[in-house]
Amino acid sequence: VTGLSGATGDTKLDDERYARAALTYLAEPGDPWLASLVRECGAVRALAAIRAGRFPGGKRGDAAERAMARWRRRLAGVPEHDQVASQLARGIRLITESDPEWPDGLAELGDNQPYAIWLRGAVTDLGAVCRRSVAVVGSRAATAYGTYVAAELAASIAALGWTVISGGAYGVDGAAHRGALARGGPTVAVMACGIDRAYPMGHTELLDGVAASGAVISEWPPGHGVARLRFLIRNRVIAAIARGTVVVEAGSRSGALNTARHARDLDRLVMAVPGPVTSDLSDGCHSIIRDWQATLVTSADEVIEALDRVGGTAGGNVGGTVGGTGGGAAGGGSSRARPGDQADLPFGVPAAQSPRDSPSREDHARDALDPEAATVLDALPMRGGGLPTSDIVARAGLETRTVLARLAVLTVCGLAERTERGWRARPPGQRRASG
Amino acid sequence: VTGLSGATGDTKLDDERYARAALTYLAEPGDPWLASLVRECGAVRALAAIRAGRFPGGKRGDAAERAMARWRRRLAGVPEHDQVASQLARGIRLITESDPEWPDGLAELGDNQPYAIWLRGAVTDLGAVCRRSVAVVGSRAATAYGTYVAAELAASIAALGWTVISGGAYGVDGAAHRGALARGGPTVAVMACGIDRAYPMGHTELLDGVAASGAVISEWPPGHGVARLRFLIRNRVIAAIARGTVVVEAGSRSGALNTARHARDLDRLVMAVPGPVTSDLSDGCHSIIRDWQATLVTSADEVIEALDRVGGTAGGNVGGTVGGTGGGAAGGGSSRARPGDQADLPFGVPAAQSPRDSPSREDHARDALDPEAATVLDALPMRGGGLPTSDIVARAGLETRTVLARLAVLTVCGLAERTERGWRARPPGQRRASG
Repeated sequence: VTGLSGATGDTKLDDERYARAALTYLAEPGDPWLASLVRECGAVRALAAIRAGRFPGGKRGDAAERAMARWRRRLAGVPEHDQVASQLARGIRLITESDPEWPDGLAELGDNQPYAIWLRGAVTDLGAVCRRSVAVVGSRAATAYGTYVAAELAASIAALGWTVISGGAYGVDGAAHRGALARGGPTVAVMACGIDRAYPMGHTELLDGVAASGAVISEWPPGHGVARLRFLIRNRVIAAIARGTVVVEAGSRSGALNTARHARDLDRLVMAVPGPVTSDLSDGCHSIIRDWQATLVTSADEVIEALDRVGGTAGGNVGGTVGGTGGGAAGGGSSRARPGDQADLPFGVPAAQSPRDSPSREDHARDALDPEAATVLDALPMRGGGLPTSDIVARAGLETRTVLARLAVLTVCGLAERTERGWRARPPGQRRASG
Repeated sequence: VTGLSGATGDTKLDDERYARAALTYLAEPGDPWLASLVRECGAVRALAAIRAGRFPGGKRGDAAERAMARWRRRLAGVPEHDQVASQLARGIRLITESDPEWPDGLAELGDNQPYAIWLRGAVTDLGAVCRRSVAVVGSRAATAYGTYVAAELAASIAALGWTVISGGAYGVDGAAHRGALARGGPTVAVMACGIDRAYPMGHTELLDGVAASGAVISEWPPGHGVARLRFLIRNRVIAAIARGTVVVEAGSRSGALNTARHARDLDRLVMAVPGPVTSDLSDGCHSIIRDWQATLVTSADEVIEALDRVGGTAGGNVGGTVGGTGGGAAGGGSSRARPGDQADLPFGVPAAQSPRDSPSREDHARDALDPEAATVLDALPMRGGGLPTSDIVARAGLETRTVLARLAVLTVCGLAERTERGWRARPPGQRRASG
């Protein structure tokens, strides 16, 4: 079986690995100030700087200092070196960019690359498993049609030796994982909370099943809960590690389109399964087929054929990248609430109301936003070359620092984009404007 | 109301018009030998030549002489001048290419242009009615979904002031006509038999309703019945007179794809409505969206928007091109069987079994073929630059003259195409190869 090679480095917790683990506790993914600090001096020195409360080389601008204060507020929640080591001893794994199994696609996220990936499950080489993988995503409030199609599609994708990646949610995600498991294929659930948390609660057994033969992974450390915005931030990882993304059933404002757009931004193949035009829940699929020219697919054969056509990482036969190593369900990790958990997400933005654990609610990207982020989003132009920050500040009626923080969040979530002339909105369901 | 202008020429039956009428009795549409004779010397002299049994300028090649013999076998079925005049007096109209209302799109058929169009109905300017029109076609064996979508779509197209064109068949066609009628919009049924024939029988009232506010038209003269091949030959007229074609529900081998391909060959906009991937009857729609890049549409607004985007004949406000002139259901015309009716279709090809008048049978283009035409089709290469006639003859194991006659038929039907190197098949559902 290929892909069973490396991936033993994670048992040895050197300073670099520990620092990476600590960063996942200190900041939300995509924090631009932390990314630039790590790029500048590495994870170990970045962690030391945060502990010392001083940037290397002395004081910086206001925004950087506010970021520093934000990270320091979370310091108390960072476990000690031996605590992390004992998590790893209990079957949780930590993967960093220096590991051979770090999925190739993540590098393409640039400064938005995860600080590290936490993993529980049987997979011993995450990179190999992702090399021939397809993300199957869609609405939480899927219809019987969507659920059926997702399960069938995923089962056939697994039977062809490809990995199914999804987000572990109700509806399409859950059906996709189940379909893959039914054929004994490896499947990867990318979580918006710690890998030891079962979210949604109703998927506790399913996620254990995913771990038993595949992997449950997250950028957030054990113990962290979900927050609406984390789903959007997480979506870029699903898009990045998979060779292509298939949207099975999604309304016109579904969060699944957010994943599809991340995939498109990363030049991955975006595919969509059509459905009855009489169902609102296929609107999103139809609109990206029409407007983004997403590839229409109706079967796993078509999905794999389309992926083979665009080429990409060769992969070869990596059908069985799964070790028999111990099922590894449960996993350790603290489950007590930690400082920073849901408190000041991300880059200091207070979390919007925690999402309800309900399969019947449609998942609109916008619902993830706190009121100030929503106000900033409303202030952004939908068309044209963008407006400068000063105009956004004036239109939003908020402080400049607040607007800047929210713009950073909206950008990581794929809801806003920087242009030559300033900022512009990217509503779900709309293609990326050129330029 | 615009479009009520011209169209009075058809009450006066001059020699040219009579000759055109006669040609519709003498040959099937798309007969290449007749097209070249008419191009050479006009309809009046062509008719005279057929009556005399001699081509102008003397004897021609074998194929031409066989064509002459074929036409002459139908001479007995051609009504006299005063008989045709009395048909016209009874409310049937005859439209020829010299009439201002001759639909613009027909000229693009070149030598396959109809010899004339027979019409019954309230429409006084067929060209104006077609200028803002959409063909809505699909499977006869439509599901409840297909029927519902076709009716809704057609109703909304009519409400936007556009004409719905279809083929009068069971399933999608009928639903499209009904939807348009429900909104009082003009709708045009393009028949594969005489306009006085109700085919299918179950649509007798529907077709009368279409005529009452729109038009029932045909290339075949009154009294002529249907034959499988005639549906395929008819399809090119639907595609040519409409600004664009929407396929609502069609299996992968449906005759509706034949109409769509004719539309594509004529550079018309081809659109398709997606459906559940669990239904075979949406396969054809999905395949042309994927492979031909047919535009995915889910509503009348999207259809009209797409048509407006590609432009084309301006049209302006031609919403009400329908006269209130007398409902004109019934119509005259002989309904007795005539020589040539189903006897030797077309260009001497014996008719395949007459189609059953059943709504439950899928309409596969190939079923229209007699055994020899099917043999020739099987002998054609599916890919590559085509094979010379001699190779086709060898592969088919038939006489050269038979092969040539069947190739001509298959070409008019859109099932074969001539290439620089010879002949090639064009199976339904496959895009036209370049070159």
